[in-house]
Amino acid sequence: MTTKVPTIVYTLTDEAPALATYSLLPIVRTFASAAGIKVTLSDISLAGRILAAFPERLSEAQRVADGLNELGELTQDPHANIIKLPNISASVPQLRACVAELQAQGFDIPDLPEEAKTDEEKSAAERYSKILGSAVNPVLRQGNSDRRAPAAVKAFVRKYPHSMGAWSKASRSHADYMNGGDFFSSEQSVTMDKDQTVRIEFVNKAGQVELKKELPLQTGEVLDGMFMSAKALEAFFEQTLQDCKETGVMWSLHVKATMMKVSHPIVFGHAVKVFYREVFEKYGELFDELGVNPNNGMNSVLEKIKTLPQSTQDEIEQAIHDCYEHRPEMAMVDSVKGITNLHVPSDVIVDASMPAMIRNSGQMWGRDGKQKDTKAVMPESTYARIYQEVINFCKTNGAFDPRTMGTVPNVGLMAMKAEEYGSHDKTFELTEDGTMRVVDANGQVLMQHDVEKGDIWRACQTKDAAIRDWVKLAVTRARHSATPAVFWLDADRAHDNELKKKVEAYLQEHDLTGLDIHIMSYNEAIRFSMERMMRGLDTISVTGNVLRDYLTDLFPIMELGTSAKMLSIVPMLAGGGMYETGAGGSAPKHVQQLMEENHLRWDSLGEFLALAVSLEELGIKEGNARAKILAKCLDKATELLLDNGKSPSRKAGELDNRGSHFYLSLYWAQQLAAQTDDADLAAHFAPLAKALAENEQQIVAELNAVQGQSAGLNGYYHVDPAAVEKVMRPSTTLNQTLAALKG
Amino acid sequence: MTTKVPTIVYTLTDEAPALATYSLLPIVRTFASAAGIKVTLSDISLAGRILAAFPERLSEAQRVADGLNELGELTQDPHANIIKLPNISASVPQLRACVAELQAQGFDIPDLPEEAKTDEEKSAAERYSKILGSAVNPVLRQGNSDRRAPAAVKAFVRKYPHSMGAWSKASRSHADYMNGGDFFSSEQSVTMDKDQTVRIEFVNKAGQVELKKELPLQTGEVLDGMFMSAKALEAFFEQTLQDCKETGVMWSLHVKATMMKVSHPIVFGHAVKVFYREVFEKYGELFDELGVNPNNGMNSVLEKIKTLPQSTQDEIEQAIHDCYEHRPEMAMVDSVKGITNLHVPSDVIVDASMPAMIRNSGQMWGRDGKQKDTKAVMPESTYARIYQEVINFCKTNGAFDPRTMGTVPNVGLMAMKAEEYGSHDKTFELTEDGTMRVVDANGQVLMQHDVEKGDIWRACQTKDAAIRDWVKLAVTRARHSATPAVFWLDADRAHDNELKKKVEAYLQEHDLTGLDIHIMSYNEAIRFSMERMMRGLDTISVTGNVLRDYLTDLFPIMELGTSAKMLSIVPMLAGGGMYETGAGGSAPKHVQQLMEENHLRWDSLGEFLALAVSLEELGIKEGNARAKILAKCLDKATELLLDNGKSPSRKAGELDNRGSHFYLSLYWAQQLAAQTDDADLAAHFAPLAKALAENEQQIVAELNAVQGQSAGLNGYYHVDPAAVEKVMRPSTTLNQTLAALKG
Repeated sequence: MTTKVPTIVYTLTDEAPALATYSLLPIVRTFASAAGIKVTLSDISLAGRILAAFPERLSEAQRVADGLNELGELTQDPHANIIKLPNISASVPQLRACVAELQAQGFDIPDLPEEAKTDEEKSAAERYSKILGSAVNPVLRQGNSDRRAPAAVKAFVRKYPHSMGAWSKASRSHADYMNGGDFFSSEQSVTMDKDQTVRIEFVNKAGQVELKKELPLQTGEVLDGMFMSAKALEAFFEQTLQDCKETGVMWSLHVKATMMKVSHPIVFGHAVKVFYREVFEKYGELFDELGVNPNNGMNSVLEKIKTLPQSTQDEIEQAIHDCYEHRPEMAMVDSVKGITNLHVPSDVIVDASMPAMIRNSGQMWGRDGKQKDTKAVMPESTYARIYQEVINFCKTNGAFDPRTMGTVPNVGLMAMKAEEYGSHDKTFELTEDGTMRVVDANGQVLMQHDVEKGDIWRACQTKDAAIRDWVKLAVTRARHSATPAVFWLDADRAHDNELKKKVEAYLQEHDLTGLDIHIMSYNEAIRFSMERMMRGLDTISVTGNVLRDYLTDLFPIMELGTSAKMLSIVPMLAGGGMYETGAGGSAPKHVQQLMEENHLRWDSLGEFLALAVSLEELGIKEGNARAKILAKCLDKATELLLDNGKSPSRKAGELDNRGSHFYLSLYWAQQLAAQTDDADLAAHFAPLAKALAENEQQIVAELNAVQGQSAGLNGYYHVDPAAVEKVMRPSTTLNQTLAALKG
Repeated sequence: MTTKVPTIVYTLTDEAPALATYSLLPIVRTFASAAGIKVTLSDISLAGRILAAFPERLSEAQRVADGLNELGELTQDPHANIIKLPNISASVPQLRACVAELQAQGFDIPDLPEEAKTDEEKSAAERYSKILGSAVNPVLRQGNSDRRAPAAVKAFVRKYPHSMGAWSKASRSHADYMNGGDFFSSEQSVTMDKDQTVRIEFVNKAGQVELKKELPLQTGEVLDGMFMSAKALEAFFEQTLQDCKETGVMWSLHVKATMMKVSHPIVFGHAVKVFYREVFEKYGELFDELGVNPNNGMNSVLEKIKTLPQSTQDEIEQAIHDCYEHRPEMAMVDSVKGITNLHVPSDVIVDASMPAMIRNSGQMWGRDGKQKDTKAVMPESTYARIYQEVINFCKTNGAFDPRTMGTVPNVGLMAMKAEEYGSHDKTFELTEDGTMRVVDANGQVLMQHDVEKGDIWRACQTKDAAIRDWVKLAVTRARHSATPAVFWLDADRAHDNELKKKVEAYLQEHDLTGLDIHIMSYNEAIRFSMERMMRGLDTISVTGNVLRDYLTDLFPIMELGTSAKMLSIVPMLAGGGMYETGAGGSAPKHVQQLMEENHLRWDSLGEFLALAVSLEELGIKEGNARAKILAKCLDKATELLLDNGKSPSRKAGELDNRGSHFYLSLYWAQQLAAQTDDADLAAHFAPLAKALAENEQQIVAELNAVQGQSAGLNGYYHVDPAAVEKVMRPSTTLNQTLAALKG
C-alpha cells in the first residue's frame, strides 16, 4: 500500500503512436480514474528531447521539461509504472530534419555540426550525441526484458493467419558475413575479481600512450574488448559484390545503425565507399570539401553536391550510374522513388529487414520492383549466423505456418546498459595504426589488440547484478509459462564463456525442479527452437540484448505478422515496471496517410496489451483490486476487438485507429458493467456501456466522415497539439459520452 | 592355438579388383607362407555364382564350386579370416549381360525370364533372384560392421589433399524427398515378447486373406512394417519435375537399386514412367507386348523396340525427344554417350552419387557436359534428409578441407540380415487395393496398413543379439579410438524408438567411464558430426545399415577422396573376422582401359590395408607372432608406398596396379629384413629385399613396357585365367625373384 496516488506514466513519443495517443489517452484516463489511478503523460519525443537539451537558447515559453531525464529518475522508484510507446531512434538525417523543423517553428536551436570545431559546436555535438539513435531505451530500460506473444493475439492469428511467402528449395538467398577480422573473431573477455577503475588506452607505433577512457568496474562485472578491421571489412564487401555479380543474386546490406549508433554507421559508410568505389576515388577530395559523410549514405552525396555547378552534378551522377553498370543489382527500399539500400543508414534495420525478407520467400525488391533472391550482407558474424540457419531451415522445410507454429518468447539481458547496449561511449574509430589495450588498476594489461587506422574498437560491460537478475527472470518465466528455456551462449565467444560460468552458478540459486533449461550455441539454439516451433511447441529464448532485439522481431513477424503485438515488459531492478508497446516502427507511412487522407492505420493493440499488464501489476503491487478488474476486462475487450474485426483498416473511409479506440471503449465498458467482482464498479460503467452501444452507428459515422481529405498537424516531429487533438478526436458524440462519465 | 593350418581366404570377385588379384595374390602368398599361413582363393564372382547355380546344366568340367555358399558356412567358424574384395551388385541388365557372355562361352545356362511362366522359368527366375543385387554381402556379413579411415591414409591425405569443388552460398542445389506417403511416414514397429511365428497377410476389399509370408521371430526381435504409396510417389516425382522446370534447376534421381534390389527398382520405374509420361501413355500396350520393364530404365525401351519396324522406332524415339522438350534438364551419367540418369537403375547409386555431387560443388553434369546446380531426388525421406543437411552446411560454411577436417568412422548394425538388409523377401508390390497386416501367433494384429494397387509394402527384422553386439562394438570402438560416439536414432521413427530402448539398456552392460556416448536424431547427428569435423574433431557414427552404407561413402569421399581406402572390418558374431577392401566400385572403366591400353589404374590400397588387419588379427587369435610382424611391416610398407608416390597412375605408360604391387613387395620385404623382432624372418626376407631393390629399374621397365596396346582377357564377367595371368604378371624378373624365395 502506498500513500501516493497510484500513477501510470504514459509516454508521448513520435509519429503514428504519438498521434494515436491523442485519441487513446483520454479514454485510458476515463477508465483508470474509476480505480483512482492517475495517468500522466511524459514527453520523450525526439523534438521534446532536442528542446530539453538547449534550455538556454529558448524563451521561457518555449522551454520544456526533460521528460526522459525525469523518467530515468522514476525508474529507480519501486512504484514506477511506465507505459512506453515506440519512439524514433534517430539517425543523423532524421535528427537534422527534426532540427530544421524546430528552427522553422522559431526555436533557436543550433545545427548539428558536420565537424565540431568551436567550443559551441562541440557542446552542441555532444548534446546531440545523447539524442541520436536508441537514446531513450538505455535510460528507461533499468531492468532486463521479458517479451512474449499474448495468448489472445496468438489465438487470433491461428484463426486468421497472415500471409507467408512460400520458400523454394532452389532459392539462392542467403546470409553472408565475415569469417575473420570482425568483432566476433577478435573478442576478448575478462571478469573483474574486485572493484577497480581500468583504463582503455591506445598506444601508437611510436609508443605514445593515449588514454581513451577510464572505466570504473565492479566486482563480478564482465568486460569485453573487440575490434573490426576496416581492411577486412572492405575486402569482405568487395567479395560479396563480386560474388553477387558472378551468381546473379541481388545484393543487400543489413545493419543496426540506429541502435549500434557509433559502430554501424561506420560499417555502413564502408559499404557505401566500396559499392561506389570509383565515385569516391575520383571525387573523394571534393566530397571532403563539401562535407559528404558516407556514413550517412548516398543521400549525403546527393544532398551535398546540390551546391555544385549543374555540369559537375551531372558528371558525378553519371559516375554513380556507371557504378550500377558493373556492380550487381542492389535491393531497393523504394524502387518507385529510386531509394536504394545504401541511401540512408536507418532505412534497413536488420532486426526488421531480415524477418521481412524471410517472410517474403527470402526475397527483396529490385530496381524493377520485382522480388528476387538476395544475398543479405551482415558483416559482423556474431549474430548474423542465425539468419543463415533460418534461411536453410525454410529452404528445407518450407515457410512456417502461423496456424500451427509454436512461439518463442524472450528473456533478454538488458539491465544496466549490459553488453552492446552500453558500448557507444566505449567505441572508437582509430585514426592511426597501433595497439588498443585495457589496463587494470595495477598496470596489468587485461586485453589488447593490434589495430590499424580505420579499425573500429569497442568495449562492452555487463554488471553481475544484471546477469543474476536475468537468470532469475528466465527461471521465473520458464516456471510461469511451463516452457523449456534455452540460454543462447556460444562456446566460440569469449564473452559468452564468461557468462556461462555465471549462469551455471546462478541457476543453482533457484528451484529448478521440473524445469527444462538448456545452454546452447546460437546455431544450436535457433535450430532447436525452430524444430520445436515447426511442431507447434514453444521455447523460451534467454539471450543477450542484440539477440533479444533480433529474435523479438524475427519470431513475432513470422508468428504474428508483426512485432507490434508483443507483450514487452521490463521488470525494473528497483522493483517498478515498464510496459513497452510494440517493438520499434514509428511508421512514417502512417503519418503520411493521415496527412493526405485523414486515415490513421496505426494499430494500438500493443498499447491495449501493455496497459492491461500495467494495470494488473499496479493492482498487485499497490493492492488495488479495481485495477486488477480493469486489467481483466481490458484483456477481454481486446479479444473481442480482434474477434469482431475492429482493428484499423489500411484503407481510407473504413474504420481506423480512432474507430478501434471507440470499440475498445465500448467492449471495455461492457465487460466492466457485466463483471460481478465489484458491483459499484459495474454500476459506474453501466451508463457508459449503454451510451456507447446506443451511439455506435453515430460515432462510427462521425469518425469515418472526416476521412478522405488532408489533415493538418502543423508539423511532423513537433506537431501542434491543438491541431492534432482536433484531428484525432473528431466524434463529438464519443467525446461527450466519455466526458459524461468523468463528471 | 589351433591344430588346423592357419588360413586366410582371399576372394575372387569381378572386374578391376579381380584382375588385380591375379597380380597381388601370388605376392601375398609368398609373404604369408613365411608365417605358415595358407592363402586360399574363393570365387564369388557374378559369373561364378551363376555357374554354381545351374550345376545340372553344365558338364563335369564346366561345374564350379559354390564359393559363396562355402564362405557362408565358414562365417560360422571362429577361425574364419576372410578378405573380401568389392564385387558386382548385379542389376538386371548386368545379370543379363553376364548370362549372355557365359552362353557365348558355351555354358548352357538359361536366360533370366522376363516373366516366368513355366516351372523351368520359375526355377531359373528364383535362382537368379538370389544372385541379383547385393547377394554376396548378406551371406558373408555375419556380424556388425566396423569401418574407419586408416591413420596412414588420413595422414597422407592431409599432406596431399584431393580436390574439393568450392561451394557457393548462392547454390540452388538441394535434396528433395517425400513429405508423406513414403516408408518413413508409415513405419510401424513392434518388439517380440516371445518366440513366435507371425504371418504377413494381405486382405483384399472382398475380405479374402492371402498369406504373403510366415516369419519365425525370436524373443526381443524388432519387426517393422511400412509402405510407400505409388500414387504419392508419382505425384511427388511430377512435382519435382515441375519445380525444376520452374526454377531452372537440373533434375536427378538417386536410388539404391542394387542393394534395395526389390523396392528401389520399382521406385526407379515410377520415375521413368512419370518423366516419359506421354511415351508410356501412348505406347504402353505396345511396350507390354514387347516386354519393356520401366524398372530396368529407358535402356529397356531402347533395347526392346529394336525389333520394331524402323518407322515405329523413329516415332517412339521422337516421342522420347518430345518429352525432353517440356521436361526439365536431367543429369547425365555420360553426356558424350547420351546416357541419362534414367538409363539403367544401377548407374546412379545414392551412396556414391550424392557424395560425388557434394564434392563437386553440389553439381552434376548436364546434357551439354557442363556442371550445374541440381535437385537430387531421393523419394524415401528416411535417410535423404541428411544430404539436405550436408548441402545446407556446405552452402553455409564452404566445402570441407581435407587438410584439416576430422574423420567420422562408423559402427554399423548389419548382423543377421538386420533392418533393410534382410527386407527383400518381405517386400511386396501390391496388385490390388486392400490391407497389409502382420498377425501374431494368437491371431492378434500387430500392425496394419491400408494400401492401394502398386504400393510397395515391406517388413524388416532386427534380431536382439545383433543389436546387443552392435552396442558392444560401438562401446569397444569408442574406447579403442578414444572418440565420442553417436547413436543415430530418430525419435520420429517407430523402429528407432524400439532400438533406443535396447541401446539404453545394453549400454548399461558396459563400463562407460570416460566415454562420450550420445543418442541423436539423424539431423542432429550429422550436424554434430560436421560441426566437429570442420574443427578437425572425430566422431564415431553408430548407425543402422543403410546409413552405414551412406555414411561410409559420404565421409570417406569427402575426407579421402574415395571410400576405397577405408578399413572395413566385420567382427563376426561367431568369432571370426571378415576384412572388406574398399566400399563398392568394381570400376568398369578400369577394365576398359586395361583392355584398350593394357594399363590397370585400380589401386589395391584397400587390399593392402585389409590384409594387414587380417594378418594382425590372425596373429592375435591364433598366437602367430610372425603374422603380427608381417602385419606391422605391411602397414609400414603401405605408408612408404603412399609417401613415395608409388600408387597407380591413371595414365598408360606410367606405373599402374602391377607396378604398385612390385613396390609394395619391395618395401614389405625391406621392412621384414630390417625388423629385429624375429631374426630368422629377417634373414628369410633379406635376399628378396636385396633382389627386388637391385632389379627395381628392370622390373618397372618390364611392367611398363607392355602398356600402350590392347590386352586380351577373353571375357569380361568370366575371363580366361591363363590370359589374365599373362596380362597381369608381365615381369619375368619379378616373377622369378618372388619364386626364388618360395623355393
